[in-house]
Amino acid sequence: MAKEITSRAQDYSQWYNDLVLKGGLADYTAVRGCMVIKPHGFALWENMRDQLDKMFKATGHVNAYFPLFIPKSFLSKEAAHVEGFAKECAVVTHYRLKNDPNGNGVIVDPEAKLEEELIVRPTSETIIWNSYKDWIQSYRDLPLLINQWANVVRWEMRTRLFLRTAEFLWQEGHTAHATAEEAIAETRQMLDVYAEFAEEWMALPVIKGVKTASERFAGAEDTYCIEALMQDGKALQAGTSHFLGQNFAKAFDVKFSDRENKLDYVWATSWGVSTRLVGALVMAHSDDDGLVLPPKIAPLQVVIVPIYKGAEQKALIDAKVLELVAQLKKAGIRVKYDDNDNNRPGWKFAEYEMKGVPVRIAFGARDLENNVAEVARRDTREKKSIGLDGLGASIIQLLDEIQQAMFNKAKAYRDGHITKVDNWDDFEKTLDGEGGFVSAHWDGTAETEEAIKQKTKATIRCIPLNNPQEEGKCILTGKPSKERVLFARAY
Amino acid sequence: MAKEITSRAQDYSQWYNDLVLKGGLADYTAVRGCMVIKPHGFALWENMRDQLDKMFKATGHVNAYFPLFIPKSFLSKEAAHVEGFAKECAVVTHYRLKNDPNGNGVIVDPEAKLEEELIVRPTSETIIWNSYKDWIQSYRDLPLLINQWANVVRWEMRTRLFLRTAEFLWQEGHTAHATAEEAIAETRQMLDVYAEFAEEWMALPVIKGVKTASERFAGAEDTYCIEALMQDGKALQAGTSHFLGQNFAKAFDVKFSDRENKLDYVWATSWGVSTRLVGALVMAHSDDDGLVLPPKIAPLQVVIVPIYKGAEQKALIDAKVLELVAQLKKAGIRVKYDDNDNNRPGWKFAEYEMKGVPVRIAFGARDLENNVAEVARRDTREKKSIGLDGLGASIIQLLDEIQQAMFNKAKAYRDGHITKVDNWDDFEKTLDGEGGFVSAHWDGTAETEEAIKQKTKATIRCIPLNNPQEEGKCILTGKPSKERVLFARAY
Repeated sequence: MAKEITSRAQDYSQWYNDLVLKGGLADYTAVRGCMVIKPHGFALWENMRDQLDKMFKATGHVNAYFPLFIPKSFLSKEAAHVEGFAKECAVVTHYRLKNDPNGNGVIVDPEAKLEEELIVRPTSETIIWNSYKDWIQSYRDLPLLINQWANVVRWEMRTRLFLRTAEFLWQEGHTAHATAEEAIAETRQMLDVYAEFAEEWMALPVIKGVKTASERFAGAEDTYCIEALMQDGKALQAGTSHFLGQNFAKAFDVKFSDRENKLDYVWATSWGVSTRLVGALVMAHSDDDGLVLPPKIAPLQVVIVPIYKGAEQKALIDAKVLELVAQLKKAGIRVKYDDNDNNRPGWKFAEYEMKGVPVRIAFGARDLENNVAEVARRDTREKKSIGLDGLGASIIQLLDEIQQAMFNKAKAYRDGHITKVDNWDDFEKTLDGEGGFVSAHWDGTAETEEAIKQKTKATIRCIPLNNPQEEGKCILTGKPSKERVLFARAY
Repeated sequence: MAKEITSRAQDYSQWYNDLVLKGGLADYTAVRGCMVIKPHGFALWENMRDQLDKMFKATGHVNAYFPLFIPKSFLSKEAAHVEGFAKECAVVTHYRLKNDPNGNGVIVDPEAKLEEELIVRPTSETIIWNSYKDWIQSYRDLPLLINQWANVVRWEMRTRLFLRTAEFLWQEGHTAHATAEEAIAETRQMLDVYAEFAEEWMALPVIKGVKTASERFAGAEDTYCIEALMQDGKALQAGTSHFLGQNFAKAFDVKFSDRENKLDYVWATSWGVSTRLVGALVMAHSDDDGLVLPPKIAPLQVVIVPIYKGAEQKALIDAKVLELVAQLKKAGIRVKYDDNDNNRPGWKFAEYEMKGVPVRIAFGARDLENNVAEVARRDTREKKSIGLDGLGASIIQLLDEIQQAMFNKAKAYRDGHITKVDNWDDFEKTLDGEGGFVSAHWDGTAETEEAIKQKTKATIRCIPLNNPQEEGKCILTGKPSKERVLFARAY
């Protein structure tokens, strides 16, 4: 009945692509690795963005906009940044086209070569700290709490819609502080904001933790992260928050005079989430019939489909539904009445299931008579009859229930996929079997971490915050360890 | 008392730069022609963007996001588009950096050369219509009403903050329709939306009109525009809406089958406004003491500054002001209480005048006693005492008055600067004198238009909508003309 979607069991990866394309979230384009975010996908991102933006502002941040281009030399200024950062970047070398003298359209004008190449921002620490140098003189200028919503480009070789594309949309917070303590507190605060957003709004349970040195952002002293679990047992990093120490302040010579008039370098953080979250949302909740979207961020929360025979019945139903729509809108519900007569109800049901609309109301002549509506939940497929009096309140309650149920289901799955293992055999068996997070001892060296990655493709997703301290032996080397860390194969 | 601002009389252009920089709207960057939009400027743009976005959605449009990059060959597909479009574009030729073997930071990897260069979008008609080809098959897929908020790049040689920068932010609507009539109606509707936004929200009176053939967007059949007047008598194009005919549909082979199953090319429009509007806003309303912002889009509408001696008085004032702030916020007013004791009241007054906050309330011990507040308007500098009871309602009324007064003032100036002239001498005299729009006869040829531009730097800003038909003689050639058009020197 639905457009054909590959089932998860058959091919999880193809299932995901089918959902993104057929659910109208995104499409491929003529530019390698770049996608179009289609209206349904963009409306979802808008809801996520607007909520995050509110949370950033509630914690004292303001938005600004910095240049798309970064002078090549800037990328060399912070040693660890340039060393660790992927070099796959889009490079602008010329600034003019001209008509081809042979009449074949346009060519690049060889005379319009830039003196210094410009890099399309892969992240903006360097260009932003170059401005902060001019904006910060005194402790009175601190803290500087700025966020930017922007597009960034990383020339990824293997791309996947939303999860890994050459261009993507994100936000990047860049803050400046007078002390290390304050910067660390900011880093942790934003991690909490991300976790709250993921759990409360995306219904996506996450583990808060800190990255190992090898997985840190290039130029950071510490990288905190939230890690989520997808339905195929693979982990997905859903957001990161970096304590940058004084590294960028030193690279760009950003000093401030404190209350005692003493000069010191400024302390920094940066933190970001991206349109990758849309991919995480799809993978965490959806099923073989299409998208399943959490009500709080679903572009459309309720769709009403009329069931009727003939114009007379239709007119009666229309009159009542328009009244109901007004009532639901007044209650703050995003609702649509789909009475397009080009499509039959069955087609519409499948279409809105595909698009993940949380609640569908079918409304016919008998319902009108009985003053009830047939309400179907997208997440569980349960149907029930609800009285029309106080429909707004009933629907609000139902949307809340769906939101909570989606979180509970994802959390039960996630919690059921954290496996403690104490030897190599079980480690490999778990990764190849149920997957998920594997909680295991590790000797703390980058060499062992790399060896494990080479053997199993599993990486250390994080060392959870407030991790219990426990004596043990590294699953690979048998060397002593003081705590378990979370391994997983990841997107 | 304020940070030094050059006066308008002394140097209008420097006055503008001073305001933008010292008002905290934007700053220069290390990248030629690219600006940072600073928090105050970005908050202003956010308010403008959010209101426009609401108006777009209210007229049935949805948002989407298309790639930043356009394959070079796409720009050649629509003949008029490539011919007329400025060739100053940022060109991406490589996709990878590498560490300099000589240890000097990073260099562009010569082996990572793109097969086809990518152009950083100067506008998105081509990449979007390439997607529309896949999305449109039948009349059922029409109309397609999509808008995009994005950054675009045009490698301008002479740049000015907000008015003309290499990178800027904008929105671009791209719609597809089954008939020419429908597309023309859409073009006109969006022109009306822009005019309403400019007048109602920016307090900026505009003239709606149509461009001459020479001033049309490259690839358009007709370009409609709104034209505003700045305080130095120069015009500024504040928004454009293009009827694109079937030009892009033909270039990208986008056909649809109509109800009779007949194939035809799709009809198109595009329309856009940009961060240039922030520059227009500054130039239209501000004065020699700083920004003057219309209340409806001012990031901050009211600031309250306490006037006190000693901690005891301060505590009493604080208690009352917090109550007032809560009351104003409840009334939907954007208000801030600035009790930062690093700065004296006089400094704060100057600072908020500079930033254009529409209403300033100074509140001292005597006001507390008398249950009043001293309220100062930014636009007229008038001060009056207002009772604290029902302060929310009084302030809302005052903000409305300010909004209306700013529009009236700008409109009186604009209306006083439309001069009818009937001979060449008066034409030149008016342009060199009071400036503004010069309403004059023109023989309708591109040659005359160009000759006038060469002689005077004045261009035809538009042929106003519903232009009265009137016999006359071209001011340059004396040839017959049927209507007056509006000339001006322009930004």
